Amino acid sequence: METKKIGAQTAALANPPTIAGHANVVGKKEGDGPLANSFDFISQDDTFGQASWEKAESSMQKQALSLALDKAGRSAGNLDWLFAGDLLNQCISSSYAARGQAIPFFGLYGACSTMGEGLALAAMTLDGGFGEWAGVCASSHFCSAERQYRTPLEYGGQRTPTAQWTVTGAGAAVLAREGPGPYITHVTPGKIVDKGIKDANNMGAAMTPAAYETIKAHFRDTGRTPDFYDLILTGDLGKLGRELLLELFSMDGVDLSERHNDCGLLIYDLEGQDVHSGGSGCGCCASVLTGYILNGMREGRWQNVLFCPTGALHSPTSLCQGESIPGVCHAIAIANTK
Amino acid sequence: METKKIGAQTAALANPPTIAGHANVVGKKEGDGPLANSFDFISQDDTFGQASWEKAESSMQKQALSLALDKAGRSAGNLDWLFAGDLLNQCISSSYAARGQAIPFFGLYGACSTMGEGLALAAMTLDGGFGEWAGVCASSHFCSAERQYRTPLEYGGQRTPTAQWTVTGAGAAVLAREGPGPYITHVTPGKIVDKGIKDANNMGAAMTPAAYETIKAHFRDTGRTPDFYDLILTGDLGKLGRELLLELFSMDGVDLSERHNDCGLLIYDLEGQDVHSGGSGCGCCASVLTGYILNGMREGRWQNVLFCPTGALHSPTSLCQGESIPGVCHAIAIANTK
Repeated sequence: METKKIGAQTAALANPPTIAGHANVVGKKEGDGPLANSFDFISQDDTFGQASWEKAESSMQKQALSLALDKAGRSAGNLDWLFAGDLLNQCISSSYAARGQAIPFFGLYGACSTMGEGLALAAMTLDGGFGEWAGVCASSHFCSAERQYRTPLEYGGQRTPTAQWTVTGAGAAVLAREGPGPYITHVTPGKIVDKGIKDANNMGAAMTPAAYETIKAHFRDTGRTPDFYDLILTGDLGKLGRELLLELFSMDGVDLSERHNDCGLLIYDLEGQDVHSGGSGCGCCASVLTGYILNGMREGRWQNVLFCPTGALHSPTSLCQGESIPGVCHAIAIANTK
Repeated sequence: METKKIGAQTAALANPPTIAGHANVVGKKEGDGPLANSFDFISQDDTFGQASWEKAESSMQKQALSLALDKAGRSAGNLDWLFAGDLLNQCISSSYAARGQAIPFFGLYGACSTMGEGLALAAMTLDGGFGEWAGVCASSHFCSAERQYRTPLEYGGQRTPTAQWTVTGAGAAVLAREGPGPYITHVTPGKIVDKGIKDANNMGAAMTPAAYETIKAHFRDTGRTPDFYDLILTGDLGKLGRELLLELFSMDGVDLSERHNDCGLLIYDLEGQDVHSGGSGCGCCASVLTGYILNGMREGRWQNVLFCPTGALHSPTSLCQGESIPGVCHAIAIANTK
């Protein structure tokens, strides 16, 4: 049997799956930001009509998948598999969203890299010959994340300048084994990289080394250079993380500044929306990818995008125990033509 | 391209991957139980020399993978991918165990079904042509789970008769695309099933309907009947869950009583070890599979085993919010011959 693995860590899909449908659901603050036109549903009520923030997040994820299925012209019953994850303890947004949908379910934990992890696994599963359709979902909610990771909202805690703002949003993609594109052509799943950062209010710095390593591995494995891509899009390194990433590449003599952008910088108006270093959370890159980016590819704004969501794999407990923050980044090459 | 999906939810591996190495590490209580001879390492000290229970669990998982790699005659650098998960918030046992191992990493959350979820994804990835070697790990620790899910150990809370005891253990398997077996021939990933159980001290009852649905789906998709298997092994339904499962099948006119067993019943002496309904936790089925079961297959005790770990996908938060417990079960068919 032929091998579809190239280099040290990249899977080259022999028959690249199509992203047949994609959609997102976000909260009010995200709807007030610069990407407002790219969201399928903006709720003015961050509870989404639910009795708790956790249930609100679950509801967003369910709705995003439903909208993505609509666009793909399929129903949930057509999906062979569902890959989903979120930030909450025991990933309850995803399992409660998937409950009652009757789709074989793979729960993922990749922190803010989850959308990339799901796309990588779904693409390999379909390309491997296992089924025709797969769904991928990820979500986060500012209010459920704040009370789990930081302080209760009512506390009104001050944020440091390096802190990021957890996006209230969910994104879903429906992948098909056959179709007209955009295609997932390569995936480079990441290794865990930990450079010793211990400040949970500086996750951009904690995740940047992982982004650097995975993007470098992707170029090395595929033989591509940065100019192959119209856009190299990291997950949510934020303002500080982007600066560090550009610096790491410039030390290798590579200038990424023109081609690189970051979902955490795109989703908010950093000057006007008081989000300090930018957006973060599983829902950040999930809602930017499934709206602004994939819509833009369909409109011909970009032909080749390298989507590189990053995750910080710590917990409040591990940080209290003096541990540093392990980072991970998965790179997904998306192209309008195979 | 041929399809390797059969029926509604089963993947039939065209070139079944081999379980080339498997190992486990457990705590003192597990070492005092009936499966003592099947464990690779029994620690008399449940801290495993670490400063916290969480770090102890991470250390177990790392050691189990290292022992499994030894048996497969490989080093961590040979692994194309690592699939791992656990019960802790943000799956920190797995990400800290994988840190520094330099293997592309997929974090999973499937609660006690994680070992099955990982084996399913690893088998499909290798069979799909992506790489030659994959590692799968899962772990749990009684002390880290008690304080996260229930009460601090010092509190000395009483347990109900339906409660299960979280296993202190980690199991790891190394899968190879080619080899002499035992082989993973089919995987039936499960749908989420929730029958409204809200008692976190009765997880056997919460997970049994998922086990029933997945096992039934496996038989329907493959055309096999229960007598194809020498052993149908659920994850950790415990004493009560086993009774319910047998009852559900008997209502269909199927008697599973002779062929069925449960990892949660095998790992402890239920009479003598004060564990009420049996063992549970990601490490329960992971350490039973990677020792007693796979050793037994190699010795010819069983030729065909259907491994069906189950997971309860709730959280303490979701139960406090009045939610019921969603269950999932993944079935993995393991055979000595292809």
